[in-house]
Amino acid sequence: MSTSRTEAFSDGVFAIAATLLVLELRVPHVEPGGLSSALLERWPSYATYVVSFLTIGIIWVNHHAVMERIRVVNRPLLFMNLLFLMAVAVIPFPTALLADYLREGHDERLAAAVYGGTMALMGVTFGVTWAYAVISGLLHENVDPDRARRSLWIFVLGNPLYLLAIGASLLSARLALAIYALLALFYMFDVLPPLEQGYETSPVPSNQQGSTS
Amino acid sequence: MSTSRTEAFSDGVFAIAATLLVLELRVPHVEPGGLSSALLERWPSYATYVVSFLTIGIIWVNHHAVMERIRVVNRPLLFMNLLFLMAVAVIPFPTALLADYLREGHDERLAAAVYGGTMALMGVTFGVTWAYAVISGLLHENVDPDRARRSLWIFVLGNPLYLLAIGASLLSARLALAIYALLALFYMFDVLPPLEQGYETSPVPSNQQGSTS
Amino acid sequence: MSTSRTEAFSDGVFAIAATLLVLELRVPHVEPGGLSSALLERWPSYATYVVSFLTIGIIWVNHHAVMERIRVVNRPLLFMNLLFLMAVAVIPFPTALLADYLREGHDERLAAAVYGGTMALMGVTFGVTWAYAVISGLLHENVDPDRARRSLWIFVLGNPLYLLAIGASLLSARLALAIYALLALFYMFDVLPPLEQGYETSPVPSNQQGSTS
Amino acid sequence: MSTSRTEAFSDGVFAIAATLLVLELRVPHVEPGGLSSALLERWPSYATYVVSFLTIGIIWVNHHAVMERIRVVNRPLLFMNLLFLMAVAVIPFPTALLADYLREGHDERLAAAVYGGTMALMGVTFGVTWAYAVISGLLHENVDPDRARRSLWIFVLGNPLYLLAIGASLLSARLALAIYALLALFYMFDVLPPLEQGYETSPVPSNQQGSTS
Repeated sequence: MSTSRTEAFSDGVFAIAATLLVLELRVPHVEPGGLSSALLERWPSYATYVVSFLTIGIIWVNHHAVMERIRVVNRPLLFMNLLFLMAVAVIPFPTALLADYLREGHDERLAAAVYGGTMALMGVTFGVTWAYAVISGLLHENVDPDRARRSLWIFVLGNPLYLLAIGASLLSARLALAIYALLALFYMFDVLPPLEQGYETSPVPSNQQGSTS
Repeated sequence: MSTSRTEAFSDGVFAIAATLLVLELRVPHVEPGGLSSALLERWPSYATYVVSFLTIGIIWVNHHAVMERIRVVNRPLLFMNLLFLMAVAVIPFPTALLADYLREGHDERLAAAVYGGTMALMGVTFGVTWAYAVISGLLHENVDPDRARRSLWIFVLGNPLYLLAIGASLLSARLALAIYALLALFYMFDVLPPLEQGYETSPVPSNQQGSTS
Repeated sequence: MSTSRTEAFSDGVFAIAATLLVLELRVPHVEPGGLSSALLERWPSYATYVVSFLTIGIIWVNHHAVMERIRVVNRPLLFMNLLFLMAVAVIPFPTALLADYLREGHDERLAAAVYGGTMALMGVTFGVTWAYAVISGLLHENVDPDRARRSLWIFVLGNPLYLLAIGASLLSARLALAIYALLALFYMFDVLPPLEQGYETSPVPSNQQGSTS
Repeated sequence: MSTSRTEAFSDGVFAIAATLLVLELRVPHVEPGGLSSALLERWPSYATYVVSFLTIGIIWVNHHAVMERIRVVNRPLLFMNLLFLMAVAVIPFPTALLADYLREGHDERLAAAVYGGTMALMGVTFGVTWAYAVISGLLHENVDPDRARRSLWIFVLGNPLYLLAIGASLLSARLALAIYALLALFYMFDVLPPLEQGYETSPVPSNQQGSTS
């Protein structure tokens, strides 16, 4: 199976999971004049919406960077990717859980730990998928295998950060949410080995544009 | 109509049905300190989420394997595929039904049978679609017609397994759920005749990569 | 803008609208032993689910047949297509309305008329989009303009059938639902002028398969 | 990363956000004979549905026009596009808010201002994405850089219109909704510099059609 079909299905799951987050922003029903305070009181819903949307979006960028470096997808890789997508697709649930209990003001630390556990599960399944592709030799020939193998350390080192955030959630749910936001920003950095002479700055050859437009 | 457009629409239905499953994981509203037990009590929601997500994901893999072997899509095939997609898209309903009644502790065997009936319907419509393509000569020339015809036996033999699972659901809903999980894993095996010299291990030719990236 | 991007967005709306229909199949909450009768009592939800899913799926097939015959998409065509998609995307609402009032046993004829009105709106916007493409000369050169112009009569004649169904809904909502199901089957017939020597039976040339797989 | 993958993910978010709007059209539950007045009373839901659907659809058209003019996507552009998509994906929430409070008849001006704020956020992030692409030299060589730079003024001038609409919402929520509808129509005009000799009227070369069908 080509990587393009795997990407199409994965893109669908990413886009739907990110867009379903809005269903957790429920309209409050209040007495006349009470809307502004009711909307402000719901800040946890907006904060968790932003953190979850950006996390899904940034992981989508990294998922594509990984898929660009994979030459061919075999069945084991497909099923690892499926477990990863299952963790992505479930994100709206811990997002709603954390938002609701931050607002209720009790049990919010457990909710923050569940949120962090989902993020850690996503990180681990993502790292395992990349590690399997590197170790099984499924990469494009223009990816340096040594640099690919060294990039695995970033994933090995990155996941304990989520464990730290889960630990912080036992102290304060708000602190944990701030750390989750920082971890999303951390994932913005490109840690994968470059493809050819830098795939980002090189123009797309004109003979490819016909088929991609 | 080319198979690519049929795949794009089918991919959309697969991805959306799989991602909508998360809407059934509702946030419990509890007294202070009651969240952990409320979350644990909802294990049927998580178990059915995992089984349904993996079943949809694995069927998606097999759907692509079938589509890769089909040369051209005609109107009858499109409408068989549509009936199959209707069975896929309805999965979130029996999933929620089974989760809710496993938790309520009554009528759960009927709910498990409805779940199995939906899965059997999906299996039958999938098998009929493949059988129609094989019998009507819609396959690629590099698919061995004899092996394709023999692969139909797998589908004929596979569907009674769902009937067995529906029977088991009358004994125990939990046993039935375990069998549904095993059947999803059973579908992970590739039973279709190979395309050329094995489409999974052969690298994508470099002149195709431009259009698939 | 190429037709491919318009098709991708349209495919998304079709697939999502069809898959969102499942959210209207709500799990009934009953006393022990009451599930089977509660599920049977909800037959209008299943019947309207099937009719709406098949209608959306069949209209998707016809939308692609139209898009295949269009050479280039201009802004007016894009906005007509957008109005058509707005009618497609709203279908889950009249579907739920008809299902709920068929079950409640009152006001179901108004609900059936609203359902038919939505279908008629979809048919009219679809016909207007095709008519605009034919009249403005946006078709592929291998579509016979005379046959394209004659095909417009089918649309002009097809839409009054929905008006008849709306009329029938004032007599009986169940009769109207049966007519809507028949109209969906009516749309299964291919009424558009052929593309080249019949696009359905001709094999996809092998040099195209690389970019579409 | 090629623009095609960014477009695929963006298309998904646009199509899902537009289609999720239907979930806010809830079925009213009334006494026998009360359905027609209950449906009419819900006009704000239909009006906001139409305005939001058309706004998302028209912004989708413009997003593609921008993406067609961009040669290559780098990480900063991806994250600006992500912020833009976050504003698009949230639209169902202010849509439901405005519909509910227009019907309740109180606090509707605040709801209209929140709606306008979301639209302004979408406009600003869209303009910033285009401005970054123009200033950073990420455009195709067949886009006139001078005309591209001048087109930025349209965005600078367009966004204060949303501020005006937010101001109008403090006077009347209905007036504001009418202005939002007019602003969507305003976005129908093509203000970007042309691509080559006009991309809309030039036929797609036949060697491209194979890969886009």
